[in-house]
Amino acid sequence: MTHVEIKEAQKQVDDWISQFEDGYWPPLSQLAALVEEVGETAREINHIEGSKTKRSGNDNLESELGDVLFALICIANSYNISLEDSFKKTMSKYDKRDKTRWKQKTKKP
Amino acid sequence: MTHVEIKEAQKQVDDWISQFEDGYWPPLSQLAALVEEVGETAREINHIEGSKTKRSGNDNLESELGDVLFALICIANSYNISLEDSFKKTMSKYDKRDKTRWKQKTKKP
Amino acid sequence: MTHVEIKEAQKQVDDWISQFEDGYWPPLSQLAALVEEVGETAREINHIEGSKTKRSGNDNLESELGDVLFALICIANSYNISLEDSFKKTMSKYDKRDKTRWKQKTKKP
Amino acid sequence: MTHVEIKEAQKQVDDWISQFEDGYWPPLSQLAALVEEVGETAREINHIEGSKTKRSGNDNLESELGDVLFALICIANSYNISLEDSFKKTMSKYDKRDKTRWKQKTKKP
Repeated sequence: MTHVEIKEAQKQVDDWISQFEDGYWPPLSQLAALVEEVGETAREINHIEGSKTKRSGNDNLESELGDVLFALICIANSYNISLEDSFKKTMSKYDKRDKTRWKQKTKKP
Repeated sequence: MTHVEIKEAQKQVDDWISQFEDGYWPPLSQLAALVEEVGETAREINHIEGSKTKRSGNDNLESELGDVLFALICIANSYNISLEDSFKKTMSKYDKRDKTRWKQKTKKP
Repeated sequence: MTHVEIKEAQKQVDDWISQFEDGYWPPLSQLAALVEEVGETAREINHIEGSKTKRSGNDNLESELGDVLFALICIANSYNISLEDSFKKTMSKYDKRDKTRWKQKTKKP
Repeated sequence: MTHVEIKEAQKQVDDWISQFEDGYWPPLSQLAALVEEVGETAREINHIEGSKTKRSGNDNLESELGDVLFALICIANSYNISLEDSFKKTMSKYDKRDKTRWKQKTKKP
């Protein structure tokens, strides 16, 4: 069984949006949409972690994270940015910068 | 040439974090990290779109989007959520809900 | 007629929260609450500004801005920070840093 | 000694911005600015609360909260919204909705 590549996810979003006349929203509107989804993610995590109103299961969070990813992909697509390249850049930055920032596990002999 | 699958990206982040003793941060700290990265994305988009201080190229934005994706994956990993499943859920929701929300392009004959 | 001082608003929030046993949430939960409110503000502004679903009036935005201010005050109160001092600090920083950053209006003779 | 009223803070921001030719940014740009400041607030709170890199004092947080308030006021001013009215609305909503949501302190006899 194959899994969805980041590149393929970007294409699926592009196909979906391309069927509409208006196409992508202006970038600052897309950013606002991303912020809205991050806000809903914040609410879900507060529900799961907070001491007041514990919620069991995290189905809602699963949905919200998908919405955040969708909004993120829209922004990337608008600017012709490959999220795969973005991801590789971040991994390589962290690898260089943070390798010695936290304590590594001691290797078992 | 093969591309990075969403699932593989989650595993790379997990491998990277698993080398440290402390492992994943608590979810609310990870959320704060996501918010910080979204804030930096907002700054970049304002630079690109704003009328004052136009910046050419979007290398910085490419980096910021990678950082947002990394922070998003950390949250998903902490809760054992498959971002691929999340993404499919979102695509299927939009497909049902929004198909008739905006004007579809008229098909060429 | 007198108006509400920033300091007085902080006290009102403190009085309100102090009536409950649990008191203030932990700071990272409060931050998540702030992010949630900013997300709702983003949705409202997108509704008002977006080209798709214009909404007339901005009663909802007025409410959301109040919720953001409330969440901001909660964080300030938790850390014993005077938002009035914060505000003065910001105004003085902008006054020094940005005075020459944008074009000043030419004074009429 | 008198304290700064919310209304007066809005006027100070308006006076400051009115000296520039460009005036207020478009609302979605202002929202992006707010998101950027909230992101910096998130970073500060993570520094203070996180287990890794404790920072003593909260001078930076004091500054960030002022920046958030400034960005919030800019949005309110652009839409001619009285943040004082917004605040009263929120307090009155919470008073009605949440009075019985959490456990009240038992009154001492």
